[in-house]
Amino acid sequence: MNYPSKLIEEAVQEIAKLPGIGKKTALRLVFFLLKQETEEVKKLSAALLNLREKIRYCQRCGNIAEETLCQVCASPSRDKTVLCIVEGITDVMAIESTTTYHGVYHILGGVISPLEGIGPEELNIPALIERIKQEGVQEVIFALNASMEADTTAFYITRKLKELPVKITTIARGIPVGGELEYIDELTLSRSIQERVSYRQ
Amino acid sequence: MNYPSKLIEEAVQEIAKLPGIGKKTALRLVFFLLKQETEEVKKLSAALLNLREKIRYCQRCGNIAEETLCQVCASPSRDKTVLCIVEGITDVMAIESTTTYHGVYHILGGVISPLEGIGPEELNIPALIERIKQEGVQEVIFALNASMEADTTAFYITRKLKELPVKITTIARGIPVGGELEYIDELTLSRSIQERVSYRQ
Repeated sequence: MNYPSKLIEEAVQEIAKLPGIGKKTALRLVFFLLKQETEEVKKLSAALLNLREKIRYCQRCGNIAEETLCQVCASPSRDKTVLCIVEGITDVMAIESTTTYHGVYHILGGVISPLEGIGPEELNIPALIERIKQEGVQEVIFALNASMEADTTAFYITRKLKELPVKITTIARGIPVGGELEYIDELTLSRSIQERVSYRQ
Repeated sequence: MNYPSKLIEEAVQEIAKLPGIGKKTALRLVFFLLKQETEEVKKLSAALLNLREKIRYCQRCGNIAEETLCQVCASPSRDKTVLCIVEGITDVMAIESTTTYHGVYHILGGVISPLEGIGPEELNIPALIERIKQEGVQEVIFALNASMEADTTAFYITRKLKELPVKITTIARGIPVGGELEYIDELTLSRSIQERVSYRQ
């Protein structure tokens, strides 16, 4: 492509590094930005830079934080005896959106995957074990995605916790609320039957 | 959505203002940027700002420029007697990519559209007429998209040029190279027959 200016070429190249954005889309965004007020583009540019430079990670759970601790860990109203283990920050956001969980979190930053060279040491697992030992955690809830790697990770962590007086649970797998039996996969359906719960009247 | 940090919320809001990018995609981009080196994010942020602050428009043709004149107008090797009229900068880029046009351009910045309140004065038309009168232009080529508004615009400009000794042409409409007759629309096909050219052996 023959760019009319070096500045446009640079902007296109930088934007096209983002996932899911090719050079055509990047060019469309460039022309969009050229039509905006300078003030608007300044805001976008500053927001991106602030994001990368000012965001820190919670020293306790690994969640996104602006201080030493994240909003959840710093809150006095959260139950520190219940610890929910998740893979990533988006999982925390999803659970927080339900507003029904009042415990705290621990973010692994992934799952054990020997194929990709990710072992327990690459994840936040040693810190997790340490936390459970020292913070008086009474229940650990696994809220991991359904994958073989996640199962391995949960198994590994469970074994490490064997000696500790802590209850270990995992989120329920089953038919989503509003889901139709007809369209659900066999594995989920069979699991929802095996793990049936008492009918609440 | 419950954002874990004000900085993330701000970045999501700014990114989601871009066309075709919603809040979900914006959040995905935010997490991507958080994983990048600070240096990379700085480059992106600076490229966007530079783009908006440093890019100017050619005083002669309206193309993108870094100096007073754009690369095309400033080039001594371009034929200033042939003037190609286009709607926007992307059209210039498309024609420049062919590397077969050696004249100069004039960018209208749109087409006449009474419905959207765009008249000749909102476009770059008065400057165009002035240019043709003063710069010894011998041929004007319309390279507009095929739309009723573009036809109106070409008609308006042609009428303004009636008294001037200038040849007026328009790009050929027809079957694209590699296109199949079977799949082309009737209008294009009938026009390509009406405007047939001598067979070159």
